Parts: sequence; C-alpha cells; structure tokens
Amino acid sequence: MASAKVYVTLKEGIADPQGLTIMRALKSLGYEEVEDLRVGKYIELKISGYDARRIAERVREMSERLLANPIIEDYRVEVEE
Amino acid sequence: MASAKVYVTLKEGIADPQGLTIMRALKSLGYEEVEDLRVGKYIELKISGYDARRIAERVREMSERLLANPIIEDYRVEVEE
Repeated sequence: MASAKVYVTLKEGIADPQGLTIMRALKSLGYEEVEDLRVGKYIELKISGYDARRIAERVREMSERLLANPIIEDYRVEVEE
Repeated sequence: MASAKVYVTLKEGIADPQGLTIMRALKSLGYEEVEDLRVGKYIELKISGYDARRIAERVREMSERLLANPIIEDYRVEVEE
C-alpha cells in the first residue's frame, strides 16, 4: 500500500484570520519572534492498487475536486511507495 | 528570516470523523482505492532573530503549549533558514 500526503495552503493574498489569531496568541505568550503564521491542512491517505505515478495523478484530481478549493487554496502532493 | 513548518496529526487510535467523511466522499466520487485518510494541520511560521537550533526548540515549545494538543495530537517541526 502506498501513502500520499496533500498539503493545502491558502493562496498568497488570501487573508488567514485563524493564522492571525494564533500568531497574536503566540506573541502574547512571549514568542515575539513570530513574524507571520499561516494555517493549512495536511491530509494523509493510504492508497492501494495503483503505481506511484498514477496515484499522484489521481490524488491531484482528488485535490482539485474535493480536498482543496482551487479558487483560494494551493495544494502539493507527495507519494511514497 | 527563517521559516518553520509544523505538521500536527491525530495520534494513532484517535478517531478522525472529518477524515472518515472525506474518505467516504472520495469513494462516492469513484476513488475506491483510498483505504484510509486522516486530516491534520500544517502551520507555516516566519521567524526572525534566532538561529535554526533555537528556532526548532522554541517552535516545539509553541507546539506543546498552543499549536497542538499533546494529549491527542503528535507534531513534527521542520526549520529552514
């Protein structure tokens, strides 16, 4: 069985209020060194029955259709056999 | 400025209803090959003023205190200078 990882992040220029709130909370705890913070999703899939190239293709398709919102989010796919 | 990435995932054995829902939705779209799916968080930070070793230490501390819930979540920290 292969494993695939999908990293979904907001596109540059899209506001991230959740990230801003976390950054402010960190600063209030004394972590003044945090200059920026963005929150994304990290999705791990176990996949059977295809080779790595085809898995990457199909997981990119899943990302376009369901895992990410391509209007406001970027995604990156990694496959490990 | 350095960048740090934190990957937060549910510990093994902790139920992931969100992941299950997404997996079922993928299967209903025809992606029958998905055997398991878990959703985590992916946090990107920009950090100034420390070297990589100290950044890794402080970001692990941030993870313990705020970014992850160590009772039910694991986290992994990567630092790039």
